[in-house]
Amino acid sequence: MARIAGSSGPKTEEAIRRAGLQLLYTHGYAAMSLRQLAGAVGIQQGSLYNYFRNKQEFLFELIRSHMRDLHAALDAALLPEGNGVARLTRFVEFHVAYHIERPQEVFICYSELRSLEPENFSAIVAMRRDYEDKLIEILEFGRATGEFRLADTRMAAYAILAMLSGICTWYRPGGRLSKDEVRETFLGMVLSLVSGVGMEESLPEPPRLAEVSRSGARRR
Amino acid sequence: MARIAGSSGPKTEEAIRRAGLQLLYTHGYAAMSLRQLAGAVGIQQGSLYNYFRNKQEFLFELIRSHMRDLHAALDAALLPEGNGVARLTRFVEFHVAYHIERPQEVFICYSELRSLEPENFSAIVAMRRDYEDKLIEILEFGRATGEFRLADTRMAAYAILAMLSGICTWYRPGGRLSKDEVRETFLGMVLSLVSGVGMEESLPEPPRLAEVSRSGARRR
Repeated sequence: MARIAGSSGPKTEEAIRRAGLQLLYTHGYAAMSLRQLAGAVGIQQGSLYNYFRNKQEFLFELIRSHMRDLHAALDAALLPEGNGVARLTRFVEFHVAYHIERPQEVFICYSELRSLEPENFSAIVAMRRDYEDKLIEILEFGRATGEFRLADTRMAAYAILAMLSGICTWYRPGGRLSKDEVRETFLGMVLSLVSGVGMEESLPEPPRLAEVSRSGARRR
Repeated sequence: MARIAGSSGPKTEEAIRRAGLQLLYTHGYAAMSLRQLAGAVGIQQGSLYNYFRNKQEFLFELIRSHMRDLHAALDAALLPEGNGVARLTRFVEFHVAYHIERPQEVFICYSELRSLEPENFSAIVAMRRDYEDKLIEILEFGRATGEFRLADTRMAAYAILAMLSGICTWYRPGGRLSKDEVRETFLGMVLSLVSGVGMEESLPEPPRLAEVSRSGARRR
C-alpha cells in the first residue's frame, strides 16, 4: 500500500499518510501503533516525529487535511450563478466524484470521529458543518426561487449527504455500474427528493392506507 | 452502562451484550479486550466463555442477533397489502423508529463489518442483503403499479437506507426536532425521491445551465 519513502520530506509525508490510512481502515485508531506505521512506511519510528507529535495529531491532521482539500475542491467546483437545479446538480456531481475515489477517507472521517480528543473533534465538526452549510445554502436558494420544496433544509442536506457518501460503502470499480451511471442515477434521485412531490400537502392523492385500493393504482 | 449481572444466565448475557456494545462503540473491536469486557460486567473473565468462545464470536453474535431481531421486527411491521406508497410508508416508518433507538448497533454493524472473519462477514452481508431485498421488493411493486419511477431499484434502496440510517449520526433526543418530526420529514423526502420527478426525461423544463435565467425561476 504505502510507497517506500524516498529521501525527500514531502514524499515521506505522503507515504506516511497512505500507510496510516490503510492501517486505520484495517485496524482502527485505538489498535493502530506508531511502530506499525513506521514499519509500513519502511522508516524508523523516531523519524515519524519529524511529521507529527503523536498518534492523535496524526489522526487529526489526516482528517483535517481531507476536509481542507474537500472544501477547496468544492469551492472550485461550485457555480456562482445559475438556478437552484443547476447549482445542486454541480454540488451532487462534485460530491459523488470526489468521494467515490476516496472510500477509505470517507470511512475514517466517519468511524474515527469518536477517537478525536474534544478540541480536535470540535474543529472537525465545525469544518464538516461548513461543508453542510454550503449545501444548505443551495437548498435555501432553490427553495426561495420555488424550484425546491423542502420541509427542513438542514435535514434535507443530511439526507442528501448520507445517500451520496453511502455510495462508498457499496460501489466497486469494475462492477455492474460505471461511475457515470451511479452519479447520474443519484443525481436524478436527489433532484426528485428536492422536488417535494412526496410532501403530503402537495400530493394529488394523499397516500392514506384506508382509502387505498390495490387495483386503484395508476400507471403513469 | 452495563447492568451488574445477577445470578441468572439471561441477565448476565444481556449485561455482557450491553457492556460489549459500549466498549466496541468507544474503542473499536481490535482494541477491545475480553478482560475489559469482564471488568465492565463485573464478572471473572473465565465466566465469559459460558456465553461465547472468543472475541470474534462475540462480535459476530452481536451483529447477527441485531440483524435477526431487525428482520423479525420488519416482518411484523410490513403490510401484506396496499399500494406501493402505503407499503413504502410502512417500511420507512419502521426503519426510522427501529434504528433511531439503536445508534450504537447501527454504528457497529457498519464500522466493524471489516473486523468479521470471512465466513462471518459473508453471513452478515447475506442477512443485510435480505433486508435490502425486502425494500427492493416494495420499490419494484410500486414501479409495477406506476406509482414509483426509478432508474434502478437497487441503487434506490441503497440511497433510501443510507439516508434513513444516517439519522443515527446526527439525531439527539431532546434536540431541535422530535422523533415524529424527523420520521415524517424523512418519509416525505423518500416519497419525493421515488416519484422520479428528478429523472431527466420527466422534467417539464430540463435543467440546462445555458438556458437558465436567474430571474426566470418560478414560484410554485
